Amino acid sequence: MVESMPGGITAAAGFEAAGVACGIKASGLDLALIVATPPARAAGIFTTNLAVAAPVVVTREHLRRSKGTAAAIVVNSGCANACTGEQGLRAAHTMATDTAHLVGCSEDQVLVSSTGVIGEQLDGAKLTQGITQAAGALGRDGHQAAAEAIMTTDPWAKEAAVRATTPAGVFHVGGMAKGAGMIEPNMATMLAFLTTDAAVEPVPLQRALADAAADTFNAITVDGETSTNDMVLLLAGSRSGVHIDDTGYPAFVDALQAVCRELALAIVKGGEGATKLIAITVTGARSIAEARQTARAIANSPLVKTAVHGGDPNWGRLVAVAGRAGVEFDLAHARVRVGEVELFGDEQIFADREPAAAEHLSGTEVEIGVDVGTGGTGSATVWTCDLSAEYVHINADYRT
Amino acid sequence: MVESMPGGITAAAGFEAAGVACGIKASGLDLALIVATPPARAAGIFTTNLAVAAPVVVTREHLRRSKGTAAAIVVNSGCANACTGEQGLRAAHTMATDTAHLVGCSEDQVLVSSTGVIGEQLDGAKLTQGITQAAGALGRDGHQAAAEAIMTTDPWAKEAAVRATTPAGVFHVGGMAKGAGMIEPNMATMLAFLTTDAAVEPVPLQRALADAAADTFNAITVDGETSTNDMVLLLAGSRSGVHIDDTGYPAFVDALQAVCRELALAIVKGGEGATKLIAITVTGARSIAEARQTARAIANSPLVKTAVHGGDPNWGRLVAVAGRAGVEFDLAHARVRVGEVELFGDEQIFADREPAAAEHLSGTEVEIGVDVGTGGTGSATVWTCDLSAEYVHINADYRT
Repeated sequence: MVESMPGGITAAAGFEAAGVACGIKASGLDLALIVATPPARAAGIFTTNLAVAAPVVVTREHLRRSKGTAAAIVVNSGCANACTGEQGLRAAHTMATDTAHLVGCSEDQVLVSSTGVIGEQLDGAKLTQGITQAAGALGRDGHQAAAEAIMTTDPWAKEAAVRATTPAGVFHVGGMAKGAGMIEPNMATMLAFLTTDAAVEPVPLQRALADAAADTFNAITVDGETSTNDMVLLLAGSRSGVHIDDTGYPAFVDALQAVCRELALAIVKGGEGATKLIAITVTGARSIAEARQTARAIANSPLVKTAVHGGDPNWGRLVAVAGRAGVEFDLAHARVRVGEVELFGDEQIFADREPAAAEHLSGTEVEIGVDVGTGGTGSATVWTCDLSAEYVHINADYRT
Repeated sequence: MVESMPGGITAAAGFEAAGVACGIKASGLDLALIVATPPARAAGIFTTNLAVAAPVVVTREHLRRSKGTAAAIVVNSGCANACTGEQGLRAAHTMATDTAHLVGCSEDQVLVSSTGVIGEQLDGAKLTQGITQAAGALGRDGHQAAAEAIMTTDPWAKEAAVRATTPAGVFHVGGMAKGAGMIEPNMATMLAFLTTDAAVEPVPLQRALADAAADTFNAITVDGETSTNDMVLLLAGSRSGVHIDDTGYPAFVDALQAVCRELALAIVKGGEGATKLIAITVTGARSIAEARQTARAIANSPLVKTAVHGGDPNWGRLVAVAGRAGVEFDLAHARVRVGEVELFGDEQIFADREPAAAEHLSGTEVEIGVDVGTGGTGSATVWTCDLSAEYVHINADYRT
């Protein structure tokens, strides 16, 4: 049984957090620290962007050198430390050494992360001061401040946590994330940090994170952009006394996925200018990969996103995107539904049902289904938000 | 020598055109007819969308059956005849047989094209009446009415023509196009029709069209969508007396490309909500194909398009898109310029030059250069427009 609970990133035993303001952003909290006592098993997934930011380089290296062990995660907002060359790498290393010194661990047991403006150097003095301040403020009650400190233009802080009751015992998974909000206004960076008090060995921990992310963090899109700084980190302590073996693995992934899903959907709901959450389910594809490719093409289509924004059951746009998605598509057997209302199928057009579909689109949570007609069993769901004029205003006019 | 001239689709000798209103659209011209006397050599390129519209199916079939000969092109706007099944195919065939009867040619010498709402059936009676009316109105002076009749929400009619003076003699190339304007508001369909009075055999004619389109119609994007109806047709008569052989081929492609480029850029300038024409040139790639892929990713990035709209020289977004474009990218040697102003190169950030770059962005024609740093010789230019709140309004609110 998986139940929601409060507590965010410190819901699991053995983790403390803090969020402080150190002046990297003009105002507000901008530095988060998460500490695991004792050091935890660690797993991470990272941006596929080749213009990779310094903190991503350093955190990958630390995970490798520490063989997947971490005592702390330190995160700043307001500056992405991306496109910053050697100086940026030095700054990312300094974040880690400063933290290691205060927490009492080796540098490679500190994972670092940044989000904010691309192409500006981090201010080392501010960082050092912020890390010192955060180390003094650590507590189980620091989860909300930490979640606030990683925000950029996110409309709200994003936290989630669950209590999992399994045959092997009770454990917890918690987390926090920041979403696709522009940063003064350079990138849509997705960061998520997760903790658990279930004991998991490094190999299954990494696999569980990848499995949980596939249908959550990797199944959302706001505008199709992949940032230089995207990062999801998972720390596993052992305070629950529950050891995750092969038998317990599915229950662990379930709990982890519940937290990831809540955070991922919160990122979409808080997407820039978003007014609706759109779930796009593609069926009838030759494989899950092909279903995902079509669902992602639909989710990133400006024509689909604007039609949903306007409440227009414009199924022709869905067919047109599915036809250009780059995978097999059979118009003669394709079907399109909006909510539960089928608008097109077997080359029949059900124009009289459009008012019912428009009614569904008037809500804040929208479901779209496209069967690509190849008769395959591949299916996938991708979540996105609508495209509003507000998105344009945020991204065009932010600095003017 | 290639000189611009008036006359559009009838600038070349041997072609007449007409544009009439037959009530498929609520108001305005909605049916265009182009007739070649005598029948001309014909070539075409078509949408890669798998949800292919009935007129694309029929026109491909006619080009094959006629071995590349055409006497007429008939085009309607207001209804795309897409997702219309057997009934739609019958309607497309009827457009051709009606025209063939009036023009005095075989059905397979008529090429048909449609643009407009997806998922509605064409009204055969209106079409027949319109084709009859157009056949009676044909003339060398009908080019502008024809160009208007293929418009949907295009802000203006798009025509171009050139006179080419070559060692082999003087010939003409003319054309008209419709752009990426939504259609009540289902699709961004690109249609272009071209004529020449230079005599070209079918094989080199098809090759010349593909060559000319590669850096023109296939190098533009408004919103990354590919419609169910996209089509470019080229008819070659022989009235100039100039026969294009291997020696004359480059001059012919030059003239053809000049017309295609003017029409393609007009499509981008007339993109929905567009206020700026953006030329994105990618250099330093391992191949032309890789350069095109990166240029296209940048051109379709909502973050880049909104930044240009806002006049913000946000080079970090350009680096970030180049890094996720799916081809080789080396941050250490990448360079970014806006206009002539280099903002990033060799991992150096030139923040003091941003005002000069912003000055360039304040114009209506913007140039962006990205060197992907791999040291290759591959380069490519793609044109797009900015993304404005007006785009969202057009596509979200059109039917409300």
